[in-house]
Amino acid sequence: MTWIGIDLGGTKVYGVVHHADKIKTDAKRKTPTEGGPDAVVATIAGVIDDLGGIDGIKGVGVGAPGPVDHAAGVVGQAPNLAGGLRDFALGPLLSKALGGLPVYVDNDANVGTLAEHKRGAGKGAVDLLGVWVGTGVGGGLIFDGHLRRGRTGYAGEIGHIVAVPHGRLCGCGHEGHVEAYAGRASMEREARARAAAGRTNRLVELAGEGRMTSSVWAKALEARDPVAVELIDSAVSALGTAVADAVTLLDLDTVVVGGGLTDRFGPTFVGRIEQATRDQMFNQSSPTRVVPASLGDQSGAIGAALMAAESASST
Amino acid sequence: MTWIGIDLGGTKVYGVVHHADKIKTDAKRKTPTEGGPDAVVATIAGVIDDLGGIDGIKGVGVGAPGPVDHAAGVVGQAPNLAGGLRDFALGPLLSKALGGLPVYVDNDANVGTLAEHKRGAGKGAVDLLGVWVGTGVGGGLIFDGHLRRGRTGYAGEIGHIVAVPHGRLCGCGHEGHVEAYAGRASMEREARARAAAGRTNRLVELAGEGRMTSSVWAKALEARDPVAVELIDSAVSALGTAVADAVTLLDLDTVVVGGGLTDRFGPTFVGRIEQATRDQMFNQSSPTRVVPASLGDQSGAIGAALMAAESASST
Repeated sequence: MTWIGIDLGGTKVYGVVHHADKIKTDAKRKTPTEGGPDAVVATIAGVIDDLGGIDGIKGVGVGAPGPVDHAAGVVGQAPNLAGGLRDFALGPLLSKALGGLPVYVDNDANVGTLAEHKRGAGKGAVDLLGVWVGTGVGGGLIFDGHLRRGRTGYAGEIGHIVAVPHGRLCGCGHEGHVEAYAGRASMEREARARAAAGRTNRLVELAGEGRMTSSVWAKALEARDPVAVELIDSAVSALGTAVADAVTLLDLDTVVVGGGLTDRFGPTFVGRIEQATRDQMFNQSSPTRVVPASLGDQSGAIGAALMAAESASST
Repeated sequence: MTWIGIDLGGTKVYGVVHHADKIKTDAKRKTPTEGGPDAVVATIAGVIDDLGGIDGIKGVGVGAPGPVDHAAGVVGQAPNLAGGLRDFALGPLLSKALGGLPVYVDNDANVGTLAEHKRGAGKGAVDLLGVWVGTGVGGGLIFDGHLRRGRTGYAGEIGHIVAVPHGRLCGCGHEGHVEAYAGRASMEREARARAAAGRTNRLVELAGEGRMTSSVWAKALEARDPVAVELIDSAVSALGTAVADAVTLLDLDTVVVGGGLTDRFGPTFVGRIEQATRDQMFNQSSPTRVVPASLGDQSGAIGAALMAAESASST
C-alpha cells in the first residue's frame, strides 16, 4: 500500500510517497511565514500535488512541530508555523482539502523516532528513546514496539528534562532544561550574549547577522574556538544527563540521537553523549546503546508515512 | 480468592492474608542478618506459619528490596538481606519450601506502587509514578493500569536519576543521584560528616550512636536546626527535579509519594515536592497531581498480594 508522509518543519515542508518500505518520489516547498492555518494546509496540499496527487494513495501522515492530539489530529501549539498557531486542526482541515482522504498527525520527534525504529538505527529494539537535537531538542518513546504518546500527547519531551537545577533559562520559561544547553536556538543566543559581554568568538564572527548554522558550529570547533568548545561541552553534558535519566527510569535498551547538529558532527558527538550517559546511569551492567540516527533528514517524512499506516491499521 | 502478601524488608518481614480487598490477618518477624538464602526463606515460611499456613491460599507474593527478575523470581542484588545476597532465587526456593505453592516476586517499590494504584492514593489513575522515600529512594511505574518492569527489571528507579550533575556521591557510586540527597542513609551520612567538620547539629545530638530515625528528623526540624532544615530542603529539591523529569518524559497524571520519612512529615513534605515539581515541569497546563501515599507501611504487603493475583491471572 502507498502512503504519503509529510515532514512539516519551521522552514520547509518535505513530502515523500512511500511504498513497500521505499521512497518512490519526494518534493518540498517553503513553509509559509504568514496566512494562518489555511496557508499551511494549502502548502501541504501543494507538496502533495508536486508528488503526483492522491491517486492510489491510501492516506497521509504528517509530522508537526509541537505537541499533538493524535486522535483529534490537532496541533496544540506551533510557534514556528505561519506566525504562530494554537489548536491547529491540521488533520481535519487537510483531510477536507484532500476530499476526505484519511490524514493522521503526530509530533515530529515521535514520527522521526518511529522511522529510526522501523527502518533506521533502532531496528530490532524493543524499547527505544529517540533524541532530536535541532533548533530545539525533541524526543520520542517506543515501548514494546509502539509509540508512547502519553495522556496529553506530551510524552517523550526529553528536551525539557532538568539538566542543571536553576540553570540557564529555557525557551519554555523554565530554568536549566536540556534544550537551554543543547538546542541550537539557545546555544546561538548564548554565543551572542557572550560576545556582547566581551567574549568575542568565531561563532558570531562567522554567522554575522545570519543564522548560526551547523556548518558555522563545525568551523568554529575546527578552529578550537573556546566559546564554541564550551557550549558544545555543555550540550553533551546536558544530553548525557537527560539520556541517563531516561535509561534509568525506563530501563531502555536503545537510544537513537539525530537532528541537524548531530548529523553534522556525526558519531563523535553521539559517542561523547554515550560516554556522559554511562558515567551517570545506575545500572552499569545494562547493555544500553546510544547510537546516531541513520536516516538523515528523511526520517520525519518516512516516519510520518509509517505512522499513518500504523494508525490506520489500529483503528 | 485468598493470597498471602509478604513485604521482605531490611529489618523485618511483614506478611498479610489478603482476601476480597481486605487484610484478614497479619504477622511479622525480624529479617535474619546472616544465614544466607536459606535463612531468609525459612523466616518467610515462619511468617506464613504465623499467618495460619497455606490452607486455602492460592499463592504468595513477595516484595523484595532490590532489582528483581519477575519471570524467574530471582532477586539480583539485596545488600541488606542476610549479610548481602546476589542472584537470590527467592521464588523457586520459597515455592519449594511451601510444597510447590505458586510464589511471585517483584521489587518492593513496584508492589507498593501497585497497592497505592489499586487501593490507595493513586486509585483511578491511568498512569502513575510511585516514589518511596526511605533508607534509599525507590520507585515504580504504572502505565495503562499495569506495572512497567522494563527489560531487565530496573524500570522506575527514580532514586538514581541525576538531581545535581557532579553532585553528592550516591551509595551506588555515581554522583548527584536523587538518593544521595533524599535517602535517609545518605542524609544521615551527610549530617554526621557536617558534625565531624565542625557543624554540630541536633540530628547527631539526638541520634547519638543510634540510627537517625524519622522522629529524630522531626524533632530537629521542630527545633529549626539549620543543618536539618538544609538537608530536608535539598531532599525536597532533588525529589522535585526527579518527579518533574518523570512527568515531562512520561506525561503522567498522578505521582504518589510514600515511605517512612514521608509518612512522618505528611502532606507538607509532599506539598513542597509538588511545588518543586511544578516549578520545573514543562507542560504547565498538565493536571498532574503529586499526593501522599495512603496505605502507610502496609502498602508493600498488600501490593505483594495484589501482584501475585495479577501475575497468576496473566499467565
